[in-house]
Amino acid sequence: MTRLPAMRPNESPAIQDYYPDDFARCYGCGRLNPQGLQLKTRWEGDETVARFTPRPQDMAVPGFVYGGLIASLIDCHAMGTASAAAERAAGRDIGVVPAPRFVTASLHVDYLKPTPHERELEIRGRIAHRSERKSVVSVTVSADGAITARGEVVAVPLPVTMARPESNAAPSPH
Amino acid sequence: MTRLPAMRPNESPAIQDYYPDDFARCYGCGRLNPQGLQLKTRWEGDETVARFTPRPQDMAVPGFVYGGLIASLIDCHAMGTASAAAERAAGRDIGVVPAPRFVTASLHVDYLKPTPHERELEIRGRIAHRSERKSVVSVTVSADGAITARGEVVAVPLPVTMARPESNAAPSPH
Repeated sequence: MTRLPAMRPNESPAIQDYYPDDFARCYGCGRLNPQGLQLKTRWEGDETVARFTPRPQDMAVPGFVYGGLIASLIDCHAMGTASAAAERAAGRDIGVVPAPRFVTASLHVDYLKPTPHERELEIRGRIAHRSERKSVVSVTVSADGAITARGEVVAVPLPVTMARPESNAAPSPH
Repeated sequence: MTRLPAMRPNESPAIQDYYPDDFARCYGCGRLNPQGLQLKTRWEGDETVARFTPRPQDMAVPGFVYGGLIASLIDCHAMGTASAAAERAAGRDIGVVPAPRFVTASLHVDYLKPTPHERELEIRGRIAHRSERKSVVSVTVSADGAITARGEVVAVPLPVTMARPESNAAPSPH
């Protein structure tokens, strides 16, 4: 846990701020990836929420957001939601211990309408199913209050084959 | 058509080099997006192929490629494949006229195994179904000769609502 940004008032902690350092380098949500998107997933009641303003270059055609970015936001927010839900299932608040790291088994995105560019997007997640082996997370992406994309993502605990042997930051069991 | 890179010997033309300028700014495959990935989709027989070496920052955890990048490569390669197939169905070679631009209606990715980082990936596409209204494209991503992810993508012609009124580069009808 190296760099924990100050939270705004009334903001709950972001799960990505508690991934072990070696698992905090993801392009989409790693706090230690300076070129990345640094997505932050927080609880709001029984849903998780993240907010992200696409960069100028994140366009599909002028005026609309690139579908790959939307898939990326859905993917990382779903992994964060799975991790946050594992902590909640264990009876822990976010930040008490290092957060467990999940990876994506499958990702499905329906693009309902073009997503307008140059404004903040709201990404919301909800656990549709959860077991020790996998979590299914439903995600929406909204712009200007309208849902533009829906995702369903299957998350599984990070396999030991993806943890570097020299790492001293193994994923938390859960 | 502003900037057409010289092709290597025996390399067929890339469909993205023939998108109209205003539709050539996509983060994933726009030749006019200098910060983007600039993916290039070419025919190899009845399949399309693109090759891409992830950047150092495109990691999920150290040693493995970020799933959002893989989704992005599958997405853009599928749109390129749909465009190339529309040209072929019209009896035209790539580059004779501006290429039609497609957008993603839905994207599904199965991550079969972790994708190793720091090597060239091969992305292959094949048309599974094609009509005037939509194309379904099957895509694989391989590293070191092994398929690590499979995608199925539904592509539809770019709707007129995504073309800027001031644009003089409307998508080709097809």
